[in-house]
Amino acid sequence: MAQLYSSMKPTPMLKDELDIVIPTIRNLDFLEMNDINRILGPKSSCISFKDSACRCFGYMVSKKKYIYTIDDDCFVAKDPSGKEINALEQHIKNLLTPSTPDFFNTLYDPYGDGADFVRGYPFSMREGAITAVSHGLWLNIPDYDAPTQLVKPLERNSRKFYLPLKSLNNEVVLLYVDAVMTIPKGTLFPMCGMNLAFDRELIGPAMYFGLMGDGQPIGRYDDMWAGWCVKVICDHMGWGVKTGLPYIWHSKASNPFVNLRKEYNGIFWQEEAIPFFQSVTLPKECTSVQQCYMELAKLVKEKLGKVDPYFTKLADGMNTWIEAWDELNSPDGAEAKAPKGKDE
Amino acid sequence: MAQLYSSMKPTPMLKDELDIVIPTIRNLDFLEMNDINRILGPKSSCISFKDSACRCFGYMVSKKKYIYTIDDDCFVAKDPSGKEINALEQHIKNLLTPSTPDFFNTLYDPYGDGADFVRGYPFSMREGAITAVSHGLWLNIPDYDAPTQLVKPLERNSRKFYLPLKSLNNEVVLLYVDAVMTIPKGTLFPMCGMNLAFDRELIGPAMYFGLMGDGQPIGRYDDMWAGWCVKVICDHMGWGVKTGLPYIWHSKASNPFVNLRKEYNGIFWQEEAIPFFQSVTLPKECTSVQQCYMELAKLVKEKLGKVDPYFTKLADGMNTWIEAWDELNSPDGAEAKAPKGKDE
Repeated sequence: MAQLYSSMKPTPMLKDELDIVIPTIRNLDFLEMNDINRILGPKSSCISFKDSACRCFGYMVSKKKYIYTIDDDCFVAKDPSGKEINALEQHIKNLLTPSTPDFFNTLYDPYGDGADFVRGYPFSMREGAITAVSHGLWLNIPDYDAPTQLVKPLERNSRKFYLPLKSLNNEVVLLYVDAVMTIPKGTLFPMCGMNLAFDRELIGPAMYFGLMGDGQPIGRYDDMWAGWCVKVICDHMGWGVKTGLPYIWHSKASNPFVNLRKEYNGIFWQEEAIPFFQSVTLPKECTSVQQCYMELAKLVKEKLGKVDPYFTKLADGMNTWIEAWDELNSPDGAEAKAPKGKDE
Repeated sequence: MAQLYSSMKPTPMLKDELDIVIPTIRNLDFLEMNDINRILGPKSSCISFKDSACRCFGYMVSKKKYIYTIDDDCFVAKDPSGKEINALEQHIKNLLTPSTPDFFNTLYDPYGDGADFVRGYPFSMREGAITAVSHGLWLNIPDYDAPTQLVKPLERNSRKFYLPLKSLNNEVVLLYVDAVMTIPKGTLFPMCGMNLAFDRELIGPAMYFGLMGDGQPIGRYDDMWAGWCVKVICDHMGWGVKTGLPYIWHSKASNPFVNLRKEYNGIFWQEEAIPFFQSVTLPKECTSVQQCYMELAKLVKEKLGKVDPYFTKLADGMNTWIEAWDELNSPDGAEAKAPKGKDE
C-alpha cells in the first residue's frame, strides 16, 4: 500500500483496513491505526477504533488551519446546470465569510455572491461573527437514522423516492437547495461528519468524535456528539456555524439493521443529552475552547453520568483528548510527535 | 368603484385611494378608510392612515382562521420549471404542517413532500410545534432598506444584478431556493408583510402593524414591528414561524429617497428595539396572546419609552389595539360591528 509522507507536516489522513488506492499527492500524510498508539501513548485511549470516530485523531495531529472531512462513499456532485461542484472551494468561502448567529437573514447567507441583508436587519449586526464550521449537505442518499431507513423501504429500492429527489411536473429532479445559512445562536443541530469543514485553529479542540464503535455501547453518534459540543462552545465564544452548500454525492445507504444495532443506545440517550446541551451555560471564565471543553466534560459527568456509566467514561475521554491535544499542539509537542513513516 | 359585500362575513380587504380593478369575487368584503372610524370609533386611533400598516385593520375585522396579506405590486411568480406558483396553497401547507422551533433540521422542512428528519434529530421532538406564521419570499426585487437600495445602484439599472438573480455558467438564472424552514426559538427575523400568511385564531391579536406613516415619525417598520412582537410571543407560546416558499413576483422597487425619509428613525431605533426584544422574557402567567401583548406593551413603554416618546405613544396604540380586538371579537362585538356596505 502506498504510504506518502512529506517533510511539510501537512494535514494527515486516516486509513482503515481496506485496500484503497491513494492518489500520488505531494504534501500528504497518511496515518495508520498504530500511529495513534505511537504518537499518543496511553492517551490513545480517547481515540475510537473501527469506527468513523477515529478520524478526529487526524484533526489533532494536523497542523493546518482548515480541516475538511469527507466519508469514503462520497463523491463530487453536480449542480442543476450539470457543473461539477467544488466542495472545498465552497467550504472555504463559507469559512472565510462571516456568519449571522444573532439575527436571521431571510434571504439566506448575506455574504454570498449577489446577496445582502434584507430590510430590517440591524446595521450594527451586519459585520457578523467569525465562522468556525461549514456543514455541507448531500445529494442522492440522505443521512437518515436506522428507524427512518427501515420505515421508508422505497428509499432503498428506487431513486425516485430518495430525498433529495423530488417530483415536479411528473419529472424527477434533484432537490438542490441553493442556500447557505447560519444556524442561529442557541439552536442545536444534527452535525453530520460526511461533508464537514472547520477552522481547526478556532474550534479544533472541541471537534472530538467521542468513544464509539469497537468496545463501546454506541456507534454513529460520533459526529452528533461533536456537533452538540461544538455548537454550545461556538455560541459561547460568539462564533458562527453554517449549513447548506456545498453538496457532495453520497453514493450508498448503509445497512439499516447494522445501523440500528449501533444506534439504539444513542436513540435513547439523545433524549437526555439534547435537553442537557440545550440548557448548558458555560461560565464567563471559560475564554478558550479548551477551558469550555473541560467544563463541558465536568458537566457531562455530573448530569449525564446518571443516565449511563458510559457518559462518565466519555467525560474521561473528553479530558484525555484535551490533554493530548495540548501536548501535541504545544510548541515542543508539535516537533516531537509529528507523524512518522513506518520505516523511519 | 366596485364595492362587494357578501352576507357571509368573509375576510375583508383594505382599499387605498387608487382606482383599482376589483375582480368579481363572491365572498369578499371591501373596506374603506372611513370604515375604520365607523367600526372602531375612538379606538381607531390605533390604526395607521396612508401607510401599509393600515392593513392590520383587516386582520382585526376578519372572521377567517387564516389570513394572507400581499402587497399591490406583487404578482404570481413561476418556479424554475416555468409553472405558476400557487402561493396560497403553499402558505396553507406551511400553516397546516408543524414547525421545528426547538431543534434545527438540516434538510429544511421535514414535513414537506418527500422530506424527513435527518439522523440525530431527537424522536421526542418530531411531533413539532403548531405553526402560527408562514413568511413567503420574493423573486425579482428583494426587500432592501433604503441605504442598501442607495449603495447598490446597479440593482436599479439591470435585472442582471438583482437579487435573487444570480450568475451561473455565464447565464442569469433565478435564485430560487426551494426550501421552507422554521426560524428557531429565541431568534428574531425581519418579517416582511409583502407575502405573509398567518393563523389569525392563534396569533392574530399580536399582528398589529403599529403607528406608521401619516402623522408619525416613522414608516416602513410596520411589518418589522409586528414581526418582533409576533416572534417573541410565538416563542413564549411554543408556536412555530416558517420562512421560505412560496415566492411571489415583486414587480417594482420603491423609491429609495422616499424610503430613507420614512426609515431613518427606524434605522436608529431598531438598534435599541432589537436588543430589547431579544432580552424580553414574558412571565408564565401570560397564557393568551392578548396577555402577552399587553405585557409587551408595558415593557415597551418602560424600556423603549426612554429612547423616544414615540414608543410611549406606540405602547398606548398596542393597548388600544387589544381593547378593540377583544371588543370586535367577543361574541357580541362580532355581530354588532361586522363590516357594512356604504348604503346600508
